[in-house]
Amino acid sequence: MSNNGEKRRPIWRDKETGSIKIIDQRRLPHELIVVDLQLVNDCITAIQDMYVRGAPLIGVTGAYGVYLAVLNFPTQEIEADYLISECRRIKAARPTAVNLSWAVDRVYDKLKHISNKDQAISVAQQEADLIAELEAENCRKIGAHGLPVIRNISREKDGRTVNVLTHCNAGWLACVEYGTATAPIYAAFDAGIDVHVWVDETRPLNQGARLTAWELGQQGVKHTLITDNAGGHLMQHAKVDLVIVGTDRTTFTGDVANKIGTYLKALAAKDNQIPFYVALPSSTFDWHINDGVKDIPIEERDPNEIKFVQGRKAGKTLSVLISPADSPAANFAFDVTPARLVTGFITERGICKASAQDIKQLFPEKSKR
Amino acid sequence: MSNNGEKRRPIWRDKETGSIKIIDQRRLPHELIVVDLQLVNDCITAIQDMYVRGAPLIGVTGAYGVYLAVLNFPTQEIEADYLISECRRIKAARPTAVNLSWAVDRVYDKLKHISNKDQAISVAQQEADLIAELEAENCRKIGAHGLPVIRNISREKDGRTVNVLTHCNAGWLACVEYGTATAPIYAAFDAGIDVHVWVDETRPLNQGARLTAWELGQQGVKHTLITDNAGGHLMQHAKVDLVIVGTDRTTFTGDVANKIGTYLKALAAKDNQIPFYVALPSSTFDWHINDGVKDIPIEERDPNEIKFVQGRKAGKTLSVLISPADSPAANFAFDVTPARLVTGFITERGICKASAQDIKQLFPEKSKR
Repeated sequence: MSNNGEKRRPIWRDKETGSIKIIDQRRLPHELIVVDLQLVNDCITAIQDMYVRGAPLIGVTGAYGVYLAVLNFPTQEIEADYLISECRRIKAARPTAVNLSWAVDRVYDKLKHISNKDQAISVAQQEADLIAELEAENCRKIGAHGLPVIRNISREKDGRTVNVLTHCNAGWLACVEYGTATAPIYAAFDAGIDVHVWVDETRPLNQGARLTAWELGQQGVKHTLITDNAGGHLMQHAKVDLVIVGTDRTTFTGDVANKIGTYLKALAAKDNQIPFYVALPSSTFDWHINDGVKDIPIEERDPNEIKFVQGRKAGKTLSVLISPADSPAANFAFDVTPARLVTGFITERGICKASAQDIKQLFPEKSKR
Repeated sequence: MSNNGEKRRPIWRDKETGSIKIIDQRRLPHELIVVDLQLVNDCITAIQDMYVRGAPLIGVTGAYGVYLAVLNFPTQEIEADYLISECRRIKAARPTAVNLSWAVDRVYDKLKHISNKDQAISVAQQEADLIAELEAENCRKIGAHGLPVIRNISREKDGRTVNVLTHCNAGWLACVEYGTATAPIYAAFDAGIDVHVWVDETRPLNQGARLTAWELGQQGVKHTLITDNAGGHLMQHAKVDLVIVGTDRTTFTGDVANKIGTYLKALAAKDNQIPFYVALPSSTFDWHINDGVKDIPIEERDPNEIKFVQGRKAGKTLSVLISPADSPAANFAFDVTPARLVTGFITERGICKASAQDIKQLFPEKSKR
């Protein structure tokens, strides 16, 4: 996507040095810093400490992590045990997003019978590049399939502004291009539909206030930042026509793990009969877990992410303590929205209802598993 | 309540100087600053800029504002027009809380036939003091009536920890003593019941993180700070036994205006069959408005309250910008939870259901209006 007129992705392979470049998303919107990932550990840190985040992007970063593992192997003959253990370490970096395992396993599967290092580097590089392109293309298709949803609302409203609410950042920064939740919004914007986005700030790490607001601003899409608390009130007063969010993992039965607080917005959408869509590439489906609320692992992160808020003051980025210094805090990073609250999934193959039957109808090859 | 062993209220009349003293709650928890209110304008600023907040405390502050109006009148003969216009200015300071009108009108009613300044000062002072004592006593009674709710849950759980979730600050800082939502919690704590409080941070002004966490910590009550997004997840996983919140205005039909985000917690409580109580003195009931969602005025505050977050860094209190500098933001301060989501009201006269019939049964003198 464009940033100050320059084409940008949140991750890319430097063709000269072989290293992987990422935007350090912790520093946005105040600073645009590009970081080099040279070692597997750099890649793990980037995922754990959220230099990169968002299910598709974590997957792509993991894929390049496997590439870095083979690139850095000290001899010409790659050891199978080494590769297995490095893949395991990368997959453990964040527990909730399923794309990470999916992408790492995909590169590993291509490598598992290759022991020659040069050949392995070439195969890993190709496969990781391919996953990146695939996710970009998936997001483009999600935009194309989601566009009619927004267009129909625009028609029903006789062209008046369509108000979309989104939570967290499921934009191009979370993916490779277009985003998932934002893809239909960008597609509608490009099609000349009058669209406005309510941006949940998304505590504790403020991905909405920092990233989604920045992204939409860069592309010129109308938006308004709100607190995570405000969505229900806006829905009660007919100020929201549609909710679209991304997801970190969605079960084949339709339960949606996404950034903490998503469940509350889904409840409010249901209570006010507002459509609640989840946009995702099929790499985010979990084809094994049946009951998302019970069985999707929910990451608990450092309580200081709640107690300290990062922002900008006098040209510097710094963190301030918002609570008493000795207050205990608990930081659950995700919640699960049950399928019954979801109007539909917008995928690269089209839209389906949030049920095992409808999902498998769209992805029949998965039902054979 | 006690603060570092000292007895404290958030507002009191200085018997030597005649001025009104308040704790500047904008500076908590990092600094405990006491401010003098000498003029009606000081009182209005204190309410608008949220040195004081919370329905009962705003009411008491408004009552003392009328006292300051007569205290500062330049001649010995108070003009009726002056008093009416000063009362109107005070009541306009914040639109959502009904206690402000209630308390100002109550003092005004005592004064309206008095023109002698000394006599007016004495009457206003007595009535404002009385309102302060009345609200303290109401909160004590709310605690007594709410205690059995917590005790019953404790018994059902065989004495295991009772987990209460609260939103915003409806503690002693919002009242005069005990608080509304916190009164049953303090009563349970004093009765030796094992109680723990999930404290919503309450964006944008973080009254939970700054005030409720501080209050509970000072009294030694177990608590954990969470984001406003986390409550739904905790309820899904049986980590919340009970929700208690305060209110800024509750219609006689049972609709509850409270800090923005309350409605989302009420939806989650309903979805998980968790009791959702609202604690309030009868001064917070609005006996005129029928449909709270439609007709309670919702204050929209400065968007910068969202874009900037105040906290502590290196011994200083400062504000940092969390979003792009040019992002538009919208700051709705309250929302309305429909009566159908409320399990019951805990009032100074006991507990009742959230219906016009049950509320009027408890306050029959109001049904004559």
